[in-house]
Amino acid sequence: MPSLVVLLSGGLDSYTAAAALKAEGFDLYALSVRYGQRHVVELDAARAVAEALGVRRHLELAVDLSKVGGSALTADIEVPKDRVFDASIPVTYVPARNTVFLSLALAWAESLGVVDIGIGANALDYSGYPDCRPEYLRAFEAMANLATKAGVEGRRFHIHAPLLTMTKAEIIRRGLELGVDYRLTHSCYDPDSSGRPCLHCDSCVLRAKGFAEVGVCDPT
Amino acid sequence: MPSLVVLLSGGLDSYTAAAALKAEGFDLYALSVRYGQRHVVELDAARAVAEALGVRRHLELAVDLSKVGGSALTADIEVPKDRVFDASIPVTYVPARNTVFLSLALAWAESLGVVDIGIGANALDYSGYPDCRPEYLRAFEAMANLATKAGVEGRRFHIHAPLLTMTKAEIIRRGLELGVDYRLTHSCYDPDSSGRPCLHCDSCVLRAKGFAEVGVCDPT
Repeated sequence: MPSLVVLLSGGLDSYTAAAALKAEGFDLYALSVRYGQRHVVELDAARAVAEALGVRRHLELAVDLSKVGGSALTADIEVPKDRVFDASIPVTYVPARNTVFLSLALAWAESLGVVDIGIGANALDYSGYPDCRPEYLRAFEAMANLATKAGVEGRRFHIHAPLLTMTKAEIIRRGLELGVDYRLTHSCYDPDSSGRPCLHCDSCVLRAKGFAEVGVCDPT
Repeated sequence: MPSLVVLLSGGLDSYTAAAALKAEGFDLYALSVRYGQRHVVELDAARAVAEALGVRRHLELAVDLSKVGGSALTADIEVPKDRVFDASIPVTYVPARNTVFLSLALAWAESLGVVDIGIGANALDYSGYPDCRPEYLRAFEAMANLATKAGVEGRRFHIHAPLLTMTKAEIIRRGLELGVDYRLTHSCYDPDSSGRPCLHCDSCVLRAKGFAEVGVCDPT
């Protein structure tokens, strides 16, 4: 079985993406990042998800992006609630987050001798983050093939984003088909001190919309 | 004065690059990375260099690439000594290191509202690392402009690599003209426990060659 390094946040999308890639026949190495996120509770979910997926290894790396700031997820900026979704990029955008995450995934993949990298990026039911768009992922792939020894030697990195053009409802339907246990996941950007979701941030709203469209209860 | 985030390792190249960019009129924000490097002593040098440069701020971020491994600089692999330079990429290559570093620089730059990023990459008197080549830096730039809110809003990131096509001797000559104090720098990949250079790794050999060509003594 070919191996693949998948980014695992502990959220709904990355779990579903990982399950879909596993179903495609990949042996999974899961990477989670402790980046100073206010919803650090998602890393507990990531561990549970990694176990449920039966990954070969789950690596957690830490890099404190709160030192960099510039986002409601890493700095003392309020997370917007019941926001109207429009073309703007909200303050929950974390500067260069997916680029940092994919770079770390690339480092690990190259060290493992792996050229396949997975990410749960979605460019449909999402907050408009630029680093979730197909053109960004293609540019990262092109850069990765120039950045690395593996690339120079003619191996080609491939970024797999199986959810890229799916609605949240389609993602959930696909996950349920694959036997994904959504009870294990955490999506909220701004949970209370017990880890309970706020139900009003973008992530909670999109999740609720997805489950409503599928017509099933969110098991969390 | 426009601001620029410059990667500062504590070595000869990044100090010279930063000094050259300062001379071009940039106000410097210096970023150093504690990545599990065996020559972590370079970070002491980076602090001294940042002070000598009079940077506006010096940020040190930590991300432990020794968990990823795959390099003589981060794993228990011997650093080659008195190596014959050829077309191969040596074991001191750290998978995706410059991509991780530039991603962190990009995150900080975007948070600061800065679009200029500096790096001391050199593709002439170097170890053949793929992530020091012009085509890689151009691909990173293209990716950065798709990755970020700043890019979407029409601001363009620019990666400045003023040493890219210079020989080590040319770099040192330029640095001496700029008043760079090379006593502050650390280049060796494999220093002893007191931080003294081995004089036989690629980095020591290239440094010695450079000073010899210039015809001055290395002040360290």
